[in-house]
Amino acid sequence: MDRLLLTEVAPRDGLQNQPTLVPTAGKLELIRRLAEAGLTRIEAASFASPKAVPQMADAEEIVAGTRSLPGVEVSALAMNGRGLDRALACGTPQIATVVAATEGMNRRNINMTLERATAAAEEVIGRALEAGIAVRAYVAVAFECPFEGPVEPAAVVRLAERFAAIGAGEVVIADTIGAAAPGQVSALLRALLPSLPAERIGMHFHDTRGFGIANAHAAIEAGIRRFDASAGGIGGCPFAPGAAGNLATEDVVLLAEKSGLATGVDLPTLIDAVDVAGRLLGRPLGGRAMPWLRRSHAQASGDPR
Amino acid sequence: MDRLLLTEVAPRDGLQNQPTLVPTAGKLELIRRLAEAGLTRIEAASFASPKAVPQMADAEEIVAGTRSLPGVEVSALAMNGRGLDRALACGTPQIATVVAATEGMNRRNINMTLERATAAAEEVIGRALEAGIAVRAYVAVAFECPFEGPVEPAAVVRLAERFAAIGAGEVVIADTIGAAAPGQVSALLRALLPSLPAERIGMHFHDTRGFGIANAHAAIEAGIRRFDASAGGIGGCPFAPGAAGNLATEDVVLLAEKSGLATGVDLPTLIDAVDVAGRLLGRPLGGRAMPWLRRSHAQASGDPR
Repeated sequence: MDRLLLTEVAPRDGLQNQPTLVPTAGKLELIRRLAEAGLTRIEAASFASPKAVPQMADAEEIVAGTRSLPGVEVSALAMNGRGLDRALACGTPQIATVVAATEGMNRRNINMTLERATAAAEEVIGRALEAGIAVRAYVAVAFECPFEGPVEPAAVVRLAERFAAIGAGEVVIADTIGAAAPGQVSALLRALLPSLPAERIGMHFHDTRGFGIANAHAAIEAGIRRFDASAGGIGGCPFAPGAAGNLATEDVVLLAEKSGLATGVDLPTLIDAVDVAGRLLGRPLGGRAMPWLRRSHAQASGDPR
Repeated sequence: MDRLLLTEVAPRDGLQNQPTLVPTAGKLELIRRLAEAGLTRIEAASFASPKAVPQMADAEEIVAGTRSLPGVEVSALAMNGRGLDRALACGTPQIATVVAATEGMNRRNINMTLERATAAAEEVIGRALEAGIAVRAYVAVAFECPFEGPVEPAAVVRLAERFAAIGAGEVVIADTIGAAAPGQVSALLRALLPSLPAERIGMHFHDTRGFGIANAHAAIEAGIRRFDASAGGIGGCPFAPGAAGNLATEDVVLLAEKSGLATGVDLPTLIDAVDVAGRLLGRPLGGRAMPWLRRSHAQASGDPR
């Protein structure tokens, strides 16, 4: 059966901007529950500066605490050389690194030109590969930049080609601000697929405008099978009222089930994992399909909730 | 510019099951505001039995009150001969009528066989056309039936062909319980398009699982340009907690804008119309994109809300 390969990002991209500091034990419990649900690729931590991202200050402990999870590929974000040093020092099995596709975003975010940011990422990727660990390389703001507006597919293709050339196993195209519509997804993939086979491309969507599932479907139609998703849709900026987070894992799994694609994920167990995350953050969580999934799950189990 | 032709259904499908009885003046205000937003096809009322659907008891007054709206095609639902008599008696300009695609739904809902329900609808359609008014004929539960499960495309095609043969100008395929995924939409349209040109097909989606926009995009990709939508996503069963309603007009308009398709709808004016509906129902309304649309609208207008 044709299958989707999901990378669960709730423990990292989901949690990193949440105002409630989640204790290490809570994160490890969440990761364990996500693994139990059948998620075999989990982005678990970030080696960002603990001052800049206090939620991720326990990255070393998370990597140590997840080492014994059977059959799970754990990765962590390393945005620069210092982050990579920490990742390597504690034996992180896989890293992710990110470059934004526009001058404006790189200047505002890390005070670098696009070229300097790309060269720095190439160095991180090269060093990680030398150390024998796999790399997922992200192209951020691949559709629209908050400072420059719509992004030309050619700019994304150039960056993806450089990441692939240096040896990143997977290049992930990220709609960082959730601005893409399915037509843009199809257009970008038409531009990218001649340079990079579908097996090396992942997609990372945010669901800001409610187009996440439509975008995922457009990517599936183009042959993409690797997707990031965040259990409960956790992510985004919790301070912006009504801001939606990452594309929810449960929504993607439901889309896959409806599309005849396997994911290996058990939805009832995933809903329980989302509830663990909800208790950690002190608020109800769930993607677009969650109200229906909860009703349907409750009916199936005879649970009257 | 290629365009989508939207039929706004909030005043009928949206309101009909709402527990708050909306006064006739409130409905007419909502319809006027929807027309101001640029919606030129509005399903305004239903000639259902006032006992069965008290919210629609004022159908004659709604038809009378909307007669002077410039450039707006007003339609009303007439499910049977008695409804049609009422529609014709008060000069309704256009009707919609509905048959469910399955035996189970027809038996449970109107205690008829599928064949008898179809024949009854053919009589309604025939009489309406003789009276010189246009008909939109709906195929309900076209993807999944709550009593029979998944529906074969062939069953939908047979019904659509009969509606088209008797002269219904538009056949609308309705995902009544919001169960379709985009792959099913594509498959059904592949089966239907050899029998009926895209210009005579409309799609009516509910957003129960958050797949509404993905389904609309799949239909657009198949060449469909006629869509029902409900301002604010009003609709569905308000008693089921978390049940989502109809596909929201604002979501479809945003998809169209992102897809280079015109709709004639002005989003800020539509948001104001949704707020009118929200005041009538006493609760905040809005489709999946609404939180983002409100922020974006507030920023553009300098409105600090």
